[in-house]
Amino acid sequence: MASQAVTPQSEDFSAWYNEIVYKADLAAPSPVRGCIIIKPYGYELWEGIRGGLDRRFKETGHQNAYFPLFIPESYLKREAEHVEGFSPELAVVTHAGGKQLEEALVVRPTSETIIGEAFSEWIQSYRDLPLLINQWANVVRWELRTRPFLRTTEFLWQEGHTAHATEADAEAETIQMLNIYADFAINEAAIPVIRGRKSNIERFAGALRTYTIEAMMGDKKALQSGTSHNLGQNFAKAFNIQYLDEGNERQFCWTTSWGLSTRMIGAIVMAHGDDKGLRLPPRLAPYQVVIVPIFRKEEEKAGVMEAVARIKAELAGIRVHVDVREGQSPGFKFNDWEMRGVPIRLEIGPKDVQNNTVALARRDVLDKSGKQFVSQDGIATAVGDLLNDIHASMLRQATEFRDSNIHDVKSYDELRQVVEAGGWARAWWAASDADERRVKEETGATIRCFPFDQPQEKGVCVMTGAAAQEVALISKAY
Amino acid sequence: MASQAVTPQSEDFSAWYNEIVYKADLAAPSPVRGCIIIKPYGYELWEGIRGGLDRRFKETGHQNAYFPLFIPESYLKREAEHVEGFSPELAVVTHAGGKQLEEALVVRPTSETIIGEAFSEWIQSYRDLPLLINQWANVVRWELRTRPFLRTTEFLWQEGHTAHATEADAEAETIQMLNIYADFAINEAAIPVIRGRKSNIERFAGALRTYTIEAMMGDKKALQSGTSHNLGQNFAKAFNIQYLDEGNERQFCWTTSWGLSTRMIGAIVMAHGDDKGLRLPPRLAPYQVVIVPIFRKEEEKAGVMEAVARIKAELAGIRVHVDVREGQSPGFKFNDWEMRGVPIRLEIGPKDVQNNTVALARRDVLDKSGKQFVSQDGIATAVGDLLNDIHASMLRQATEFRDSNIHDVKSYDELRQVVEAGGWARAWWAASDADERRVKEETGATIRCFPFDQPQEKGVCVMTGAAAQEVALISKAY
Repeated sequence: MASQAVTPQSEDFSAWYNEIVYKADLAAPSPVRGCIIIKPYGYELWEGIRGGLDRRFKETGHQNAYFPLFIPESYLKREAEHVEGFSPELAVVTHAGGKQLEEALVVRPTSETIIGEAFSEWIQSYRDLPLLINQWANVVRWELRTRPFLRTTEFLWQEGHTAHATEADAEAETIQMLNIYADFAINEAAIPVIRGRKSNIERFAGALRTYTIEAMMGDKKALQSGTSHNLGQNFAKAFNIQYLDEGNERQFCWTTSWGLSTRMIGAIVMAHGDDKGLRLPPRLAPYQVVIVPIFRKEEEKAGVMEAVARIKAELAGIRVHVDVREGQSPGFKFNDWEMRGVPIRLEIGPKDVQNNTVALARRDVLDKSGKQFVSQDGIATAVGDLLNDIHASMLRQATEFRDSNIHDVKSYDELRQVVEAGGWARAWWAASDADERRVKEETGATIRCFPFDQPQEKGVCVMTGAAAQEVALISKAY
Repeated sequence: MASQAVTPQSEDFSAWYNEIVYKADLAAPSPVRGCIIIKPYGYELWEGIRGGLDRRFKETGHQNAYFPLFIPESYLKREAEHVEGFSPELAVVTHAGGKQLEEALVVRPTSETIIGEAFSEWIQSYRDLPLLINQWANVVRWELRTRPFLRTTEFLWQEGHTAHATEADAEAETIQMLNIYADFAINEAAIPVIRGRKSNIERFAGALRTYTIEAMMGDKKALQSGTSHNLGQNFAKAFNIQYLDEGNERQFCWTTSWGLSTRMIGAIVMAHGDDKGLRLPPRLAPYQVVIVPIFRKEEEKAGVMEAVARIKAELAGIRVHVDVREGQSPGFKFNDWEMRGVPIRLEIGPKDVQNNTVALARRDVLDKSGKQFVSQDGIATAVGDLLNDIHASMLRQATEFRDSNIHDVKSYDELRQVVEAGGWARAWWAASDADERRVKEETGATIRCFPFDQPQEKGVCVMTGAAAQEVALISKAY
């Protein structure tokens, strides 16, 4: 598969993406509408994402739990905005055990409602707060247009749900979890996400405020890569989540929720990939190093394989795969591992055995400058350092690409030009929801966020000419 | 909660079980019929089970993947026995995205069918075999009678699915995975399971042979705790899973599947628990050690907490929880942690600070012999050794209990007496499926398995008097 040519990004980025996802063996199509099969290579990437996040969640005092897949239809209706937002996307179980159900069960699109009901039982007093819960689960949203990882009918994610005594505590949690997402994206996925607040139109159905990390993909479109919601007291009031405060008075809790999904796999593909395939960030790559043994004659095999085994043993703690497939040429294997985005390839042949060397190739630099011979002595240190270098280099490259494609605009005309050319517009914004909808209709672009990082001075709204307090980032998005 | 009295096992084992599950905070009731909420303490136990199994699966070359939750209804119908077995238990999505679906989607009760379809695409030649896949997932079976963890409408599990070139390879895999389950149960959960083969009546719908690990619970009933199925070529033929052999001829694959679920949590509760609550096996316990600091006066606090912090640091690598709850007496905390089954409790008070000691209490031995003062010097070694001792002791106790409640029977009358008194009958068996059904109807007991461990000699069937090749274990079961 991997030896087949891929549509170049420059020709059709969307076609490139779909081909890469399948050719790099991250996923396979499934017979179920809008669903994919996550294959072992894609799932290992997800296990890396899950591990990196789960560690951060636990370090900040969160505990995992598991709530039912099915939600009684009546629960969703208790929070008015929430049901309005999710109704068009619900999958509904009407029959079970051979009978029609008295109340239909919704397959969870998210779990604020059923977890809200549980919190109302579990929380009695201020001593029970904060309650910090996370769930790793599958969810279902019946989307009209689906794309592997980016938008699938069923996807895997984590959803955090917390309850607090005060609005300030809830806000601090919401921001803390956004910062954890950003830290993870930057330091493990090498994706330079921008943190910010969503507009009214784009916020979560039922939230007070939604925060987001936004990433720029290789086609300059934005991808919302994780969101954190301050739910205020909306769900607490809908589900009667109350506590007795220190003065023995009943108070409604303040709740939050935050989620990051298998969409992150799509972000990694589109932020880093090139026309040769994936380029995986070293800290998440299922294989950080692939070793390709090279020999033409049978009598060369023993010496080569002995060196391969020794070097693999020296690389303990690094995720190494040895490609021992027979009947495939080294060239085929090189292309295959480039397609699968393994950060470092080591080639070991009879001459390397003689010279005590290894031929090393970086996936992130495909020209000659990415290739070198290194000594077998101290190989673990050299490879460990290089993995860090590759991470830093990929992050720098993505940051430069992002920054060179964000343009300050002074007028709606300039805004249109920028987003139509495929960049992100940075615009002073103090306009109405109606103006935002107009921009979306006329340009296909949306406000991605009001970034936390704001200019010192104030400006003038690109839509209305009124004084504006903040800039917005506006672009087309997935 | 934990300070409340529990119904004694001897009075009503079933009531005891339900109370313990909720009072020990493993789970909470949910508003969805037959579903529970797995609370953090129960989920951590599941994470331990998952970790122990996942490591073993990966060491034997299996890879994780993820397949869709929904299965087209037509897929289930392709294997005749399979659909007959699962039809009464299916939950069906008939509406999604606001419309009726053209083909209803079944919420997976197990994934042989959708994975079989994928395997038929992925496998081309003998070089692709064996294909060794595992999935961690939720499944739904609409059961009439449900009990927390033991039988819930939705449960979490892993399901392995593999394809092989030969019947012998498939059989070897089926047995290998059963042995992994047994190794896990014995060496991590301290449950002395018995490996064996299921009868025709009890085997998986669509399998050639089903193997099982059976555990004896505290009320002497059996709990099937994990199963491994040799599916023969049944699913390969239903889903056209074929490969080209080395002679370039098309052959059907031989497939297997094997699963272990959150039911294992129920097994741990019922195999080890007592009237004081859970007794968790040390290698799976979320907290292996709980430290209760004890001081009456504020001026004692600093010294005690300094010792607690130092001892916690020395116990690095052991899962330690320090109970710093204010407003709860030491006695309340002792009861609470006994209810939650933490293997070792350390109490540290002002006198211990003076004497350089710690008061240590074993959960598995509640009388005086389980309590001792130990020196703070070398505490890590002492605690580590004791955790191993507790594991060995719990395993020995459960094994003795099991063996003293398995009785050889020579006639159907003896068999009835044994199973009615609540033990397991070991009986020579060469009877028909009809005889097996009769035993079930008349006694409520079933053939749990034909154990791998068989007597040297041969015997005479308890039902027919004919020569019998093997003994069966027969008992009431969950």
